[in-house]
Amino acid sequence: MKNTMIAQSGGPTAVINASLAGILDTAFAGNDAGEVYGGVHGIQGIIEGDVISLSDRFKGDPQKLKQLYYTPDMYLRTCRYKLKNPDEDSSDYDKILETFKKYDIGIFIYIGGNDSMDTVARMSEFVKAKGEDIKVVGVPKTVDNDLVEIDHTPGFGSAAKYVATSVREIILDTCIYPYANVSVMEIMGRDAGWLTAAAALAVPEGCSARPLLYLPEAAFDSDKFIERVRKETEEHGYAVVAVSEGVRDRDGNYISASETKLDKFGHLQLSGTGSVLADRIKEEIGCKVRDIGLSSAQRSAGHCASDTDRKESFKLGQNGCRYALEGKTGVMACLKRTGNSPYEVEYSSEDVLNIANKVKGVPMEWIDLENAFVRQEMINYLRPLIQGESDIPYKDGLPDYIFEEF
Amino acid sequence: MKNTMIAQSGGPTAVINASLAGILDTAFAGNDAGEVYGGVHGIQGIIEGDVISLSDRFKGDPQKLKQLYYTPDMYLRTCRYKLKNPDEDSSDYDKILETFKKYDIGIFIYIGGNDSMDTVARMSEFVKAKGEDIKVVGVPKTVDNDLVEIDHTPGFGSAAKYVATSVREIILDTCIYPYANVSVMEIMGRDAGWLTAAAALAVPEGCSARPLLYLPEAAFDSDKFIERVRKETEEHGYAVVAVSEGVRDRDGNYISASETKLDKFGHLQLSGTGSVLADRIKEEIGCKVRDIGLSSAQRSAGHCASDTDRKESFKLGQNGCRYALEGKTGVMACLKRTGNSPYEVEYSSEDVLNIANKVKGVPMEWIDLENAFVRQEMINYLRPLIQGESDIPYKDGLPDYIFEEF
Repeated sequence: MKNTMIAQSGGPTAVINASLAGILDTAFAGNDAGEVYGGVHGIQGIIEGDVISLSDRFKGDPQKLKQLYYTPDMYLRTCRYKLKNPDEDSSDYDKILETFKKYDIGIFIYIGGNDSMDTVARMSEFVKAKGEDIKVVGVPKTVDNDLVEIDHTPGFGSAAKYVATSVREIILDTCIYPYANVSVMEIMGRDAGWLTAAAALAVPEGCSARPLLYLPEAAFDSDKFIERVRKETEEHGYAVVAVSEGVRDRDGNYISASETKLDKFGHLQLSGTGSVLADRIKEEIGCKVRDIGLSSAQRSAGHCASDTDRKESFKLGQNGCRYALEGKTGVMACLKRTGNSPYEVEYSSEDVLNIANKVKGVPMEWIDLENAFVRQEMINYLRPLIQGESDIPYKDGLPDYIFEEF
Repeated sequence: MKNTMIAQSGGPTAVINASLAGILDTAFAGNDAGEVYGGVHGIQGIIEGDVISLSDRFKGDPQKLKQLYYTPDMYLRTCRYKLKNPDEDSSDYDKILETFKKYDIGIFIYIGGNDSMDTVARMSEFVKAKGEDIKVVGVPKTVDNDLVEIDHTPGFGSAAKYVATSVREIILDTCIYPYANVSVMEIMGRDAGWLTAAAALAVPEGCSARPLLYLPEAAFDSDKFIERVRKETEEHGYAVVAVSEGVRDRDGNYISASETKLDKFGHLQLSGTGSVLADRIKEEIGCKVRDIGLSSAQRSAGHCASDTDRKESFKLGQNGCRYALEGKTGVMACLKRTGNSPYEVEYSSEDVLNIANKVKGVPMEWIDLENAFVRQEMINYLRPLIQGESDIPYKDGLPDYIFEEF
């Protein structure tokens, strides 16, 4: 019987550790997963041999596993590391295989987004080509909700719940003044506007105004934007704007103040879109404007996670481990929505080659361009994903998250 | 029997409406408070005759009163309106009196911060001088915690709990990378560093790093700051900075990018301190930096309110109404801490003249300048204020706040 290695990669979410807890739950339930190890800092840590025993740390300790289940961000730390084409340079792969052999690994489970699924695809092909009996399985996560083949990504529902909750509170905070007042909230999502769309859920019962939503899928027109904000402040006395960090003008230029930089995957690093728009409103309309940049708080707000999301993330972790134990490799744990009222999902495994490096944007027909809002189809899609509040453990007034240094 | 008028003023908190609910609870309990009215948009609304009946809207509806109790921000809306010296210009006072007479008001309760307590003091003096039998009472609120005579202000504990929760989640979000990483969080508090200090509570058990805290009470040294962040990233691989929006250099200049403007009370309007420091770290250290500006989300996060704070706010509202019914005027409902373990407070009324326009900063001996942190006395002071999670009502995945348009 061989052993199991798990690692986490990419940006955090509120529920990646719930997936890790799900994998551990299934791995510890029988004996077929062997000893369970964690690669610290994703595939980069495995290359460098940075490995800890998760069996030692969690097996036989359901209380600690429960604490992990509720802890946001990434217990095993992360990396942003892109494997090269092994035909050109196989040195990373050789080092990974060395670590796998050292720990007698038969199962490798990688929790991550579309870049990480590229790693799953490449590693799965590589070990197959080498004739090694190692099953490589992906477990999805990303607040961006931009993976294909899956109805929605784990982590998205929690970020959406936090965004909708915060926007609702900001609506209540913005509508109270006897003079025109605007709040601009920059929302995460480089290329996909799913999280910005979640602000649509925020509208309180009895409120006649709507937040103005700007998704990166549609070209951003600065003049129309100012016109719309002006109309809103004239009609309602206030406006709340939720704008994706990745909105671009008609020519494809980012509406961002700061210079654009490339991250290690060649993605543009953006910031400042909200500030640019806040300044523009101040200049052109001259009213009071607040620039709210929740930034990474959106992806790490474990205290406001969706219970639906957390449970699904746990289940996807369990399934990922089960698929590997059943001998599957090169697959990602997946879910499809089979009903919306009542909300129901079906779980399955999908070929990771169909998922890696692909991006799912918001369908244009779900965007209501004229009203800077979204259509009912989007509301119906989003609503079930934010349902349920998890009963997270508190200690001394704060969420009692697990934190270990290795 | 005369009637009661209530209004809210200044910036929102998560629990001002809990004070409003407390006032209504006491006013509705007997018959001595008469009909209860609300001035919409504070004293400015009362000048303009913008009044609604709160008896009509809440009396005999405990469910709705409970919803109000849990709703952040200001049900009755707000204003920032400074009354002039009545000896120079009494026109506002005359209009207020006109509204009071129209509704046969015998009690006026104003919920607000130190500017609002100035209004309470002036109104109380004015009606006395006019020989009118109107009791004027203040109920405190402000996330800044900068009122004198009171141990801590209602609203502060909830903002502190939200800040500490968010900083804890950001610590977990920042520590996960295999390369140096810094998060900079700008915290509210123009002149008082109480809320920034609350970030000290965020440190998770088992974490050897501390967030770096910069309060406005101490002069900010940019070179020392960079040196400290560099040391932190070298030792721990990451740093989390919590900086007050109001920090100033040795010469008293704000560390703020944007031009400074004056609000209606002559206070400086600040923003951008966090962005300035984030840019400076990028330039001088060259590592990855996230600039997190929670802004008004800090004061309106009802979903993360402190139950201790909410209960005290309700009680202070009840007391404010009771003091007025007992015939007191020119007083503010107050609380003093009488014990810390167990935490206990005593309620009292204090002369509003001792409170209006005064500001309570953080004592310098509670700041640990060398370590950019706070001393144990501050931790002991803060800890009881964030205790308890309120069981807020949820509907369809989001907090079920009351929202009415008038």
